Amino acid sequence: MYNKNMKPISDKVINRLTLYHSILRDYISKGIENISSKQIALLLRIDDSQVRKDLNLLNNTGKTRVGYNVKELKINIEQTLGFSKTKRAIIVGAGNLGMALAKYDNFSNYGLNILSLFDNDSKKIGKTINNKLIIEITNLYEYAKNNDIDIAILTVPAEFAQSCADTIVNSGIKYIWNFTPVVLNVSDDVQVWNENIMGNFLQFTIDL
Amino acid sequence: MYNKNMKPISDKVINRLTLYHSILRDYISKGIENISSKQIALLLRIDDSQVRKDLNLLNNTGKTRVGYNVKELKINIEQTLGFSKTKRAIIVGAGNLGMALAKYDNFSNYGLNILSLFDNDSKKIGKTINNKLIIEITNLYEYAKNNDIDIAILTVPAEFAQSCADTIVNSGIKYIWNFTPVVLNVSDDVQVWNENIMGNFLQFTIDL
Repeated sequence: MYNKNMKPISDKVINRLTLYHSILRDYISKGIENISSKQIALLLRIDDSQVRKDLNLLNNTGKTRVGYNVKELKINIEQTLGFSKTKRAIIVGAGNLGMALAKYDNFSNYGLNILSLFDNDSKKIGKTINNKLIIEITNLYEYAKNNDIDIAILTVPAEFAQSCADTIVNSGIKYIWNFTPVVLNVSDDVQVWNENIMGNFLQFTIDL
Repeated sequence: MYNKNMKPISDKVINRLTLYHSILRDYISKGIENISSKQIALLLRIDDSQVRKDLNLLNNTGKTRVGYNVKELKINIEQTLGFSKTKRAIIVGAGNLGMALAKYDNFSNYGLNILSLFDNDSKKIGKTINNKLIIEITNLYEYAKNNDIDIAILTVPAEFAQSCADTIVNSGIKYIWNFTPVVLNVSDDVQVWNENIMGNFLQFTIDL
């Protein structure tokens, strides 16, 4: 992701931009038209100069004399973060976490299109969750080949994580978003993003 | 969190230490006694000098001529990351995500003790999930007062996030781990950690 001068945007800025985006969606749902950098800063407890600096990275901030136009600013963040480029994903593991992610409509706002879920539990196969079909895991290889899948979201129990990762890699999928606490062993051309919930927790509770 | 010289450990190092910890648990379950920095580095695709540098921050690394002793290294990481200091938590929202977190036994390995869940769905109240009782949300105030709760993990649908946060704050809980996509408005003495799954996703798919 790049800013208006085609310089890369740091992870911390990306993270803050998605939080600004959440605030903007909330303001839109409440019918509020304008927002100031101070209002954003107050909600996130950060410095308003930081907010202004971040928003200056965008192509066009929709800034007026009464603050930023909420709708314009939201669109500009979406363009900068590349939401318009849709990624096609599947969820491997239709347990509670997989179900929660399948239900999370917010993903589509960010260009993540979850097409279906995979599981080995015959009681779940054929059911739908949030309009997404749960498919038998043995069909993953064929499905991925036919449906041009970019990302597999891995949400199986830890003991099945590596074998499912092997299946995903064999299916030709090049990105794994790994929600299991297992460090996966995959071939060099596959990228794994470890969603390290425990690492996040430990950072949060650092002074607790 | 501090290293052996009582200097603070950065978020990135904390994150890597938890990944090393996952690898060590895997090695222990496989009955392997020793591990080298190269083996860890290879699994995580980072430089082995980085692994050695991180492990040098620990008090006692259990390093021998044949690499690190897996069990000793695991204990040392746990001591450094303060897992021994248990935090008492509740989950607010017994939907799929709340259920997934309640089932995630790994938390207790990291000093997070989830005592119970809260919901407003009468069909769920009184049931248990992973030995944790689901309690009517109207009892949260009294429960928190009587049970010395450190952390509320917020997993309700977006439209209930702010009102539940208000209830949590009124109950005297000072830390909210927020899994909803809502930026919460809370009093100054309460800390909110936004588990920004979309921000993480966008960082991951930066070059996709």
